[in-house]
Formats: sequence, structure tokens, C-alpha cells
Amino acid sequence: MKYRVLAGMVMAVISGQAAAQTWVLTDAEAGTDKGNWQIDSKQLNASGQPFSIQQKVLHGGKQEGSKVLTITSEQGLTIALSPTRGMDLLQVNGHGVRLGWDSPVDEVVNPAYINLESRNGLGWLDGFNEMMVRCGYEWTGHPVTKDGRIYTLHGKAGNTPASKVEVTVDDKAPHEIRIRGLLKEHTFKKSNLETWTELRYIPGADAFTLHDVLTNKGDYPQDYQIIYHSNFGTPILEKDARFIAPLKSVSPFNDYAQKGLDNWNVYGAPQKDFDEMVFNLVPKADANGKTLAAVINSKGDKGASIEFDTHQLPMLTMWKNTDTLKQGYVTGIEPGTSYAYPVTIEKEQGRVKQLQPGQSTTFELTYTLLKDANAVSKAEQRVQQIQGEDKVSVEQKPIAKE
Amino acid sequence: MKYRVLAGMVMAVISGQAAAQTWVLTDAEAGTDKGNWQIDSKQLNASGQPFSIQQKVLHGGKQEGSKVLTITSEQGLTIALSPTRGMDLLQVNGHGVRLGWDSPVDEVVNPAYINLESRNGLGWLDGFNEMMVRCGYEWTGHPVTKDGRIYTLHGKAGNTPASKVEVTVDDKAPHEIRIRGLLKEHTFKKSNLETWTELRYIPGADAFTLHDVLTNKGDYPQDYQIIYHSNFGTPILEKDARFIAPLKSVSPFNDYAQKGLDNWNVYGAPQKDFDEMVFNLVPKADANGKTLAAVINSKGDKGASIEFDTHQLPMLTMWKNTDTLKQGYVTGIEPGTSYAYPVTIEKEQGRVKQLQPGQSTTFELTYTLLKDANAVSKAEQRVQQIQGEDKVSVEQKPIAKE
Amino acid sequence: MKYRVLAGMVMAVISGQAAAQTWVLTDAEAGTDKGNWQIDSKQLNASGQPFSIQQKVLHGGKQEGSKVLTITSEQGLTIALSPTRGMDLLQVNGHGVRLGWDSPVDEVVNPAYINLESRNGLGWLDGFNEMMVRCGYEWTGHPVTKDGRIYTLHGKAGNTPASKVEVTVDDKAPHEIRIRGLLKEHTFKKSNLETWTELRYIPGADAFTLHDVLTNKGDYPQDYQIIYHSNFGTPILEKDARFIAPLKSVSPFNDYAQKGLDNWNVYGAPQKDFDEMVFNLVPKADANGKTLAAVINSKGDKGASIEFDTHQLPMLTMWKNTDTLKQGYVTGIEPGTSYAYPVTIEKEQGRVKQLQPGQSTTFELTYTLLKDANAVSKAEQRVQQIQGEDKVSVEQKPIAKE
Repeated sequence: MKYRVLAGMVMAVISGQAAAQTWVLTDAEAGTDKGNWQIDSKQLNASGQPFSIQQKVLHGGKQEGSKVLTITSEQGLTIALSPTRGMDLLQVNGHGVRLGWDSPVDEVVNPAYINLESRNGLGWLDGFNEMMVRCGYEWTGHPVTKDGRIYTLHGKAGNTPASKVEVTVDDKAPHEIRIRGLLKEHTFKKSNLETWTELRYIPGADAFTLHDVLTNKGDYPQDYQIIYHSNFGTPILEKDARFIAPLKSVSPFNDYAQKGLDNWNVYGAPQKDFDEMVFNLVPKADANGKTLAAVINSKGDKGASIEFDTHQLPMLTMWKNTDTLKQGYVTGIEPGTSYAYPVTIEKEQGRVKQLQPGQSTTFELTYTLLKDANAVSKAEQRVQQIQGEDKVSVEQKPIAKE
Repeated sequence: MKYRVLAGMVMAVISGQAAAQTWVLTDAEAGTDKGNWQIDSKQLNASGQPFSIQQKVLHGGKQEGSKVLTITSEQGLTIALSPTRGMDLLQVNGHGVRLGWDSPVDEVVNPAYINLESRNGLGWLDGFNEMMVRCGYEWTGHPVTKDGRIYTLHGKAGNTPASKVEVTVDDKAPHEIRIRGLLKEHTFKKSNLETWTELRYIPGADAFTLHDVLTNKGDYPQDYQIIYHSNFGTPILEKDARFIAPLKSVSPFNDYAQKGLDNWNVYGAPQKDFDEMVFNLVPKADANGKTLAAVINSKGDKGASIEFDTHQLPMLTMWKNTDTLKQGYVTGIEPGTSYAYPVTIEKEQGRVKQLQPGQSTTFELTYTLLKDANAVSKAEQRVQQIQGEDKVSVEQKPIAKE
Repeated sequence: MKYRVLAGMVMAVISGQAAAQTWVLTDAEAGTDKGNWQIDSKQLNASGQPFSIQQKVLHGGKQEGSKVLTITSEQGLTIALSPTRGMDLLQVNGHGVRLGWDSPVDEVVNPAYINLESRNGLGWLDGFNEMMVRCGYEWTGHPVTKDGRIYTLHGKAGNTPASKVEVTVDDKAPHEIRIRGLLKEHTFKKSNLETWTELRYIPGADAFTLHDVLTNKGDYPQDYQIIYHSNFGTPILEKDARFIAPLKSVSPFNDYAQKGLDNWNVYGAPQKDFDEMVFNLVPKADANGKTLAAVINSKGDKGASIEFDTHQLPMLTMWKNTDTLKQGYVTGIEPGTSYAYPVTIEKEQGRVKQLQPGQSTTFELTYTLLKDANAVSKAEQRVQQIQGEDKVSVEQKPIAKE
């Protein structure tokens, strides 16, 4: 049961499980925002793993006014996300390992300074530096112009300031933290989509879960697409780092990727002119539709895994961008409803989903920082277990041409 | 006589009629803004109908930094407008009746987050939820691309933050309130238009007046267009609500509207797939050029009327958007210099006006909340009086094709 | 030797020459900005010419949030620049002379409110009113669409908020003031350019120097262009004002300029329908590559000169926009790496430069306010000295067609 929480107030929310406190940091309905804000486990008299949660308003350059919300768990993870940038995850750190990457874009760019239509629909690249950016929901994929209209690269969600932001902490140990953010894609006559993003984290843990609920608030069926564009660079990505996932098939995104098909799942060192190879994967899942994908370093003692549900996210894209360090040495693990082709192609090939009026759909993904050989090994075992004896079908030809 | 008012200062302004106090809330020339601000009749020792005037800076989502200025008159109207959005009127409430509508766009979107050129010139729809938005002045109407340039839907004024905002209250009863806002459409070599918008309201009244003065500050003749896009939903709009106005003629905007010509002035209940029908009207006026248009509910005991001057605003558009409640159940009464065709068509057909260097032109409209059967009846009588015995000519064919 | 300066802290910076204090006003890395801020020579116990330095955050209209940083030297110059607008120089005043001009754009427009792609790539005109705006660096010149992408008028630098802003004042007389601002043009896969702009001014002086260092932070060669678009109106510009510079040649930018070739370097009074004539100049320099260009009033007792280095800036554009006062009566003196043709033409004709990975290049220009006949005379002598006996070659035909 959930009460309407007044902006700036703290209320006990009684759920089925446990009592919890909720802080409303942003509430567009009330027109309020807390700005710089902080709580920590000491203030809350919370036992167990110490933690703090902080919101900071940034200044300078194109990040003027951007907010960053950070969970810090000294023995677990430090998770930074940006409410101004669609609740995107900026970076996650723990045990000396960083989930994330180094983009030439080194500010948390306020969408007010981004024109998504610039460079013929590539404006998204002016802000792209996240560990995880939601690509959707009205559309996603490479840009395309149809009937004079540009469908911009990877849609608008990642550049949409959250309309509501709530932080909830369970009263009882292990004091689960939940950060919820509401993204609205509301355009008169065009879209009435809302997404409640939620990040769930237990202080001290090496994993966190995203639990996002997308709803069509409109009276008409609405197409949607979503790709969880999750990006990892050093120290996990390195020469001979590997991508692992139980798979039915792999195919190259385009002719250039076809050239890299032989060792598509092994990464090279930073390489000039490598640019990017993209591989379209069909994940294999367990009986419940659950699967995972991971990138692990060469020694097999560091990595990142993403567990997801193939009923929710049936496609998986692997983005191999092992270009130079300054250009962006990064790989993307991208569970989605679609591949990264333009929406026109995705639609044509039947991968664009639809929500009926009032209908909701949920996406749940668990990100784990694989901190040592043991953690990596467990992820590998899980992959093998799901893969079983079945071979991965390697398709030589791209399924579409842009 | 008007003195230069210093930002943040209060000065007595002596006009021909009455002494008054003026508060400068925003002054771009001085670089200042009062932010959150409030006065009320008590503070001012103003007798008669109590009132308050409040400016609030909003936060959250895409309304970050948007300002809303609200006049509250408990026995009259509550009028909310947004200086950040071109002094647009957001909502007017009184006597249990709301002038305005429910758009899927439910935030007061800061234009910093709007790209008017997006969706091939439909970016305006990302912010559209006003009771009245000025569509102009450099151009208005449906978008069109000419010589590679997009003339975006309904121009820029409604998404232009006001450069000056002043609140004036007469010292003497009935303490007329005047809210003035300066909109600049200044682009080197392209436009040098300025509009002083003014809203005049007497506490306790059921009507308010807009008195806008558009000036060509440049040394060259300048084309302009303006449509007062005034929008009404529930509770006035409902099944069998009616549009009334003295008219010379009505014609359908396009083939789809032609299908609805038979009962164009009667509204249906919210209807899926209705989308919008638009009707081009030629208003009939009294000897002084004055006329009015109104929408009234089925019982005839609630409504909204707009009085205007056909010398200033010779065209009238009726926008019938009786789609579902969530999609936007709304009708527009839109006095203007133009119809809603693209500027290219309006120009071709001779409806685009021009201001000579230094020339000003005034638009004055009075909006009345028709609170009961008596008020509605008066409006109907006025319509009939102006209509007289003359029939409305019903043209079957649209005058233009987009 | 330079220490990492913490945001908000003041540290002594020991350079080869002198000890100095530095104030970090903006630091995107730390996420901080000082907002309104001021120092003056009294506070610093600085002897000699009194001065003050002030940062102010502006409000109102489209300048909401724009910052202006002003050096005031009562017996020298008052120099106003905007960190929000690419460290552009807004105006310089001294000795009753103003360097700058009156644009119809009369606000310091926050780039958040500008869409550079609007009007088919002319959005830059919505903010153009500076005495000096850097046109670059990823591209510059007139807009052009290539492969569906718009290269917008004069690039992005002038509409890029500075990521770092530092004010340094030498401890010892004459207390040189240095204002440094960092501009980032960072787009994933597209650009990794950084420019440290620096303005150097000695209180009491009639001149200041720009010392800008552009660096390609990426791993790939990067094309760049820069034009120092420096603009002067009244009181220097007037009927019979003259443009002077040692030159090898002059050619008209287009057919219209060809008509004005005969007296291209003499200005007329404000003239309706004059619009603009542009002349492409090849500057002549001294043995070290140094040269200058100036505009001087008709009497020869007021003017503005720009000294620059033809090794850095081999091209010079003269923009004669002697249209009416309200339309913009202004001339541009524009040293650059390019002329103002679209980047496609500049590239084709070999004027687009390139930086190798990690490579930097410096641009140094000295602007002098010529306050009296003596100062003007010195500038004229210097021009004559460099010109020597060589004639200026007058080319009749434009070198390119847009």
C-alpha cells in the first residue's frame, strides 16, 4: 500500500514486506526539487553495512543544472545515476573495479544543451558516456528519416529529466535502497508513455537490480522499443577479455562486423581505426526465460554480468567498440526488444512491440560486479548451464541493410 | 506617463486614470528576476474583493525553471499564466468551471527542453497544454519546409520566455490588476518583433481582457501572423456542447473536416479515432467590428466566450478535437489574422499581414467564464443580435490543400 | 608550474615570471560555479591602476542563467565577456569609445534556448550580438547540408558554455589580469577538441590580448577551422570610416560584393537594403608573419585595431554590413584559418586545417582601442610600413560560388 507522498515530506510506506522511509527529491506535480541533499545510515540509525545517498546539482559547461544521485556503500558498490539524464547510470564502482567507460564526453550533459536532431539525428552522441542508458521508448536504434521526420539515434528517454524521483530505504536490515524515477514521453497526439524506473540495492552487495515499468497512459495502442545500452571499458575490457552468454545464434550487424565474425566474442587491445563491430544475438534462456550475458577480463578475475528475462527482452546486441582509449574503448551489452537497426527496419522485421491502452510491461535486469575469479567462475558456470550442449548458430549474413 | 522602473523596485505609476503600484518581476535589461514572489490585497490594504498574485518557479522533469504567475480571486477567477512560456494562459478557474483542458503534456515545459523543429516541425506539441497560447508572430500555422527551412508549427512566441514581466495593481478600487509581459522575436537579419502582452483583470469579475501590442522594431516591413489558440475541455465541452458565433461563412479545413460539416458546431462525446476536424470561419461583426465566439455546454449553463475585434483578427478557426479524454478532448476557438494552413498557403492566399518599420498593432480579446444559464443566455443573445437575419454560408470545399 | 586548483579555493600559482592569485569561478570537473562574484584592486591591496572583476548571473528572457564576466579599469577598458557563450566578448568600452555594435538581439542568449540547426542552419543568428565571437572549431562558415547533415552557421564554439573559468591576477604591478575559459567540443566518435581561451589585460591599458590554445585531445587527426568574428559599429563605424590593413589581395565573396569592389574599404552611412558585402582578403605580414587590420572613423581620431599572426590566421575577411542602425550597422574584421564559405567549399579549396592527435595550435590576437588621432596614426603607419611599395591585387571574380 502506497500513500501519496507530499513533496519534501518523509512518510512511512507500508508495503507487504517491510516498513520503509521515502524521500521525494523531485516532484514535478508539486513543482519541487530538493537540490543538494544527503542522508546516511548513521542519521537513520541503520545497522549493518554503512551507506550514504547523496544528490548533487552540477555546474559548469553543458552540465549546468544536471543532477547526480549517488549511493555509496563502502564495502559494496558506489552507484551514480543522473535524474536529469533519464535516470541513466553513470558509473558503478566497487572492489577496485569500475563498471563504466571513458567517453570523450566527460560531462553529465544537461539535455537542455542537446539537440537530438543535430548531425542528422546523431545529437545523442553529445551526451553519451553512461554505464547504462535506456534507449527508447517511443523508438530506438540508428537514426532514420521517414516522411521528412528524423527518428533520432536511440530515442529520447536517456535525455529526459525525471519528473519524479524518490529514494526509499527499508527500516529493517538489510535496509534495501530503492531509487525510483519517473520518465515521461508525452507529446500531444504522438505519445503518452511513462516509465517508472527503479534501482534496488542492498548495501554491501555486489549486484543491483533495475525494475522498470513502462505504461501506455494513452487511449491508443502505442509502439515501443527499448534497449538497455550497458557499457564497459577498462579495467574489465582489455586484450583477450571475453563476452559470454548462452546463445541460440549470432549474426553480424553489417558487412564490417562480418569481417570480425570469427572471433566476435573475444576483445582486442585498443586499436586505431577499429571503430565498432556490432553483433546481433539471439539469447538462449533457462526454462523460465532467464538468461545472462557478461564481459570478463583476460585473467578471468574481473567482470560484469547482466541477468535478464528473454520474455521481456528477447534480443541481445553486442557492441564491440575496441577503438583507442581516447576515442572510446568500450563494449556494449545490450538486452532489448530490438536490435539497433533504424525503427523502420525493426518495424518491417517485426521486432517493434506495442502496448495497448493502459497496458504496462516490466523490464527487470540484475547487474553484478564480478569482483574476483570466484564470481567470474560462477557466471561462466551459469552460462554453460543454460547453453548446455546446443551449439551457437553462426549466421554469416546480416539480417538487414541500413 | 510611465517612468523607467528599476528592477526590484516599486514605483507609483501615474496614468491618465489612476495611481497604481508596479512590481517588476523580470527584467532582462537589468538581468534580474524575483523568482518566487507573492502579494495580496491584505498587504496592500486593498478594499473590496480579496486577491493575491503569486509567482512560483517550478522544478522537476522538463518544467525545470518554468515560472507560473497566478492571480487568485476567490469570488472571481483564478488565472494562471507562464512567463517562461510566452505569457501563455495555463488555466482559468472560477465558480466550479475550468477554462482549459487536459493534455497528455502535463508539465509546464521549459522551452529549453523543446526543439520546435523536431518531428519535422511538430516540436510545439511537446509543450502544448495551454488554455491559450499565442501562435505567431513571425509565422504561424501547420509546419512547412520551404527552401530547406522548416516553418515550425504555430511559430515561436508561445515558447519564448518573457524578457520583462510587470504586475500592476491600481491603488483605488476596484484595484484592476495588469500583468504585462514582453516577448521578443529578435533574430539578426530575420526579425525584430516585440509584443507587449497585457492581461487585465478586476478582482471578482468573471472576465479578463488581453491587450497585446505587437511592434515591428526593425527598419524593414515585416510579415506577421497571429492566432489566439484558445482551448476548452471539460466541464464545458461535452456531448451536445455547442459552438456559437455570428458568422458569414464556414468551410472545412480539409477533406476530413468536410465529412463533419453537417453538424460542425455541435460537439460529440469523447470518441476514439475522431482525431480533429478544423473549420475555417469568417466571423460577422457589429458595426464597430466587434464580435464574439463561445463554447457552451449541453444544458446551456456553463461556457466560455471570447470577444474580439474583426478589424484586428478577421479570421476565426474552430478546432474540434473531440477525441478520447486521455488523447485530448478539447476544442479550440481561435481568432486570428490567419487560418491554420502553412504560412506558404496563407501568404499565397493573401492572409499574411505586414507591419511597416516602427508600426504597432493591437489585439484585444475579452475572455468570459459563463458561469450560469444567465451568462450563457446573454452570450447567445449577443451572437443572435450580431447574426441578425443573415444566413451562414456553408462552403463545401476546403479553400486550400496542404 | 601550475597546481591543480580546487574549486572555490585561491592558490598562489608560481610561473616563470611572477606570483599570482587564481580564482576558479567555474569548474565542471568539480561540478561547481561561483555564480555572482566580485573582486577589486582594493581588496587585493593592488597598487597602480584600480580595477574590479565581476561575474554576474543574468535573468529574464532567453538570457536566463547566462553569465557575464566584466573587467573594469576606469582609466583603461571595461571588457565584458560571457562564459556561457563560449567566452565571447560582448563589448569593450574606454575613453568614450565603444568596441561592439547594436544587434537586434539585445540579450546574452543562453545556448539552452538556441537551436543552431533552425532556419536551415542559421540558428546562430538568434544569439549574435558580440564584439567578438569565435566561429569554429569543428567547422565554421555559412551553413551547408551534406549527406543529410547540416553544418550550421559558424559552428558551435560561440554557443558552448565554458567548462572551466579561471581569473588570475598577478601579485605584482602592473597586476596583469588573465581570464581563462575552457571550451569543449566533445562528441563521441566525432570530435574531441578543447580550447583554452585566455584574455590578458593590464589595468589602464588600451589593448588586450587573446591567447587561445586549441588541442586535439583525440587519437585521430581532426579538421578544424576558426574565424575571429570581430565586430564594430558606432561610434567608430560611420560614413567615410575606413578599413585599413596591409594586403596582398582582395576579392569579392560573391557577385553582390563585386558591385562594391571599387570602394570596398570605405564605409557608407547606414543604408537601407545595403545588406552585407563580404570581401576575402589575403593579408600581408612583416618578416615574422605579424600583421594588423583596423577600422577607423572618418576623422581618424577613433578606431579599433587587431594585430594577429598570419602563420596562425592566414585569411582575413572583411564584412561590410552597413545596413540601417536597427538592422545592424556593423563591420566585421575577421582573421581566420578560413573564409566564410561553407566548410565543403573551404575543404575543397584547401583552407581547412588539421590537428594531429594530441597536437595543439595557438592563436594570439591583440585588440587595441584607438582612442585618439595619435593612436590611429600609429596604426596607419604600421599598416603602411608592412604594405610598403607593394600594390594590393584586386581580383574581380569571387573565388567560389555558394
